[in-house]
Amino acid sequence: MRIAILAHEKFPDRAKTALGVLRYGDYDVEAVLDRDSAGSQVSDHVPDVQDAPIVEGMADVDADVDALLIGIAPIGGGFDESWRDDVKMALENGCDVISGLHYFLENDEEFTALADENDCELWDVRKPPEDLTVSQGIAGEVDAEVILTVGTDCSVGKMTVSMELARDAREAGYDAAVIPTGQTGIMIEGWGNPVDRVVSDFTAGAVEEMIVEKGDEHDYLFVEGQGSIVHPAYSAVTCGILHGAMADQLVLCHEAGKEAIHGYESFELPSIRRYVDLYEDLAEPVSDATITAGALNTADLEDDEEARQAVEEYTDSLDAPAADVIRFGTDDLLEALLE
Amino acid sequence: MRIAILAHEKFPDRAKTALGVLRYGDYDVEAVLDRDSAGSQVSDHVPDVQDAPIVEGMADVDADVDALLIGIAPIGGGFDESWRDDVKMALENGCDVISGLHYFLENDEEFTALADENDCELWDVRKPPEDLTVSQGIAGEVDAEVILTVGTDCSVGKMTVSMELARDAREAGYDAAVIPTGQTGIMIEGWGNPVDRVVSDFTAGAVEEMIVEKGDEHDYLFVEGQGSIVHPAYSAVTCGILHGAMADQLVLCHEAGKEAIHGYESFELPSIRRYVDLYEDLAEPVSDATITAGALNTADLEDDEEARQAVEEYTDSLDAPAADVIRFGTDDLLEALLE
Repeated sequence: MRIAILAHEKFPDRAKTALGVLRYGDYDVEAVLDRDSAGSQVSDHVPDVQDAPIVEGMADVDADVDALLIGIAPIGGGFDESWRDDVKMALENGCDVISGLHYFLENDEEFTALADENDCELWDVRKPPEDLTVSQGIAGEVDAEVILTVGTDCSVGKMTVSMELARDAREAGYDAAVIPTGQTGIMIEGWGNPVDRVVSDFTAGAVEEMIVEKGDEHDYLFVEGQGSIVHPAYSAVTCGILHGAMADQLVLCHEAGKEAIHGYESFELPSIRRYVDLYEDLAEPVSDATITAGALNTADLEDDEEARQAVEEYTDSLDAPAADVIRFGTDDLLEALLE
Repeated sequence: MRIAILAHEKFPDRAKTALGVLRYGDYDVEAVLDRDSAGSQVSDHVPDVQDAPIVEGMADVDADVDALLIGIAPIGGGFDESWRDDVKMALENGCDVISGLHYFLENDEEFTALADENDCELWDVRKPPEDLTVSQGIAGEVDAEVILTVGTDCSVGKMTVSMELARDAREAGYDAAVIPTGQTGIMIEGWGNPVDRVVSDFTAGAVEEMIVEKGDEHDYLFVEGQGSIVHPAYSAVTCGILHGAMADQLVLCHEAGKEAIHGYESFELPSIRRYVDLYEDLAEPVSDATITAGALNTADLEDDEEARQAVEEYTDSLDAPAADVIRFGTDDLLEALLE
């Protein structure tokens, strides 16, 4: 599938979804739309992802693309009206439009009319399927080994770690798949339930449904976790995923130096040891998962030696193998996680 | 407010909502509709709640009522078509209709047309308000002491215990209110957010919003808990309430003799001691709540002495005062909970 990615004024540093799709998605990215960086190449900004030209707008996309993917989100998840012409032109050209905004494109009359006219689809990935329901408590019955990323906070790398581990496991010859639970993961994988948007009673059920669907097709499932079990706002989603996935193993993701919940700074993070106990004790009555590996995001540490030392300390606190999977690779983790 | 309660073929044993409203609601119940028990009185079936005649249908309700309240729910929460004539007649008489069904009355064209015509309201209590959002992490800032009921499973008495404690605290002269989180609690109190139906990301926020609204008006808030922190399907809601309420004290509710999660019998209940640790350890990073009392439902034990012994054992496991609040009253609990 050939796509263009909209990332106006935010590429690359504030375009998490665009970067995730460039890095992990199975799409041919023909162009990135960013009016601030038009004329440069993706590779001028980010070295290790597929390259593509950065252009002003849809009118400047030379290739014939199948879809336009909205790769950024303003605070609040609304639709920025400065993107309307690009979305309209995409639809007029017969392109599907993929969006993870809170604002659903399919509630926009202009877009739905154009999509109808040009026989193309609006895919609001944040809109949960209507047939979700409560968990039956059966995710533990699948054949696959289920490995869930959990975190000390939001945005500490759970999605990235899941993607890196699954990709490298596949490259090493294992049959591994990702269970996507958030908008970027869903866009990368092309399917999945946006677990943070489902009815709260269906949180575990929304994860279980995916595990059951894929659990006998693969040997390893890497489940993308969300939030943190001690997050004042989002712990419900974390807890529902923990119990819905009925994981066999957990990978605790953390960011080096982080001391408080982002955006909720009066809430200090517990010690790493405490997180291990909290996750394992809470999992135990449902699935008896243990934290068998850790992932530390050291992006803020410039010095490699400093990063290596942070990982060593993290490994000690966890009492399990750990790494920064982007900086130092996934070998140590996969050795611990795969049989 | 004068109401009639619809409970066809299920009063009293399978009419949990009807009974809760009769027992705790601030309504004058003029009639209960149950075609199976028509001609008898509520007091013929249940001794300790307000009395009312049981009648065949709306046509037999003599009094002038303000609302018809649907007091039962079939499995799945659908609307039973055998109730349609009663609901229509209520609306034709200018009565509001209050429903906690999954099936929203306001999506029923016949009902909405009749409600419009007769200037009355359809209140689907299970429909969350549209303006809910994520928690800000501020429930801990309110003046009131926040006391949350938590459970070893669903249906062990959390709603009942919250209502009994709040009522008896008020009768003893304390300024106490209930924060309702489920359909029956919401009907009883006449307001509240149905926390199990909100978007999962807003679970804690839906509770916080209520705590913040009432927290400076009262000295004590009794928050109605939901589910159980080890429930394979519903733990997300439990966790969101625990962190959203930022409780000061927890009351652990349990049913005597229960050994497995209802409907998920392969999941054994952990020990009571384990529940105490799980709830306290999980609360701690957000609000440092402790379990200061317990409530044991001994309804299945016929013998009072046996019940008393079960409560004693429960008290020992908890290491905190406990009682069956229906059987033995709330004195011991209130002494522990109120300053």
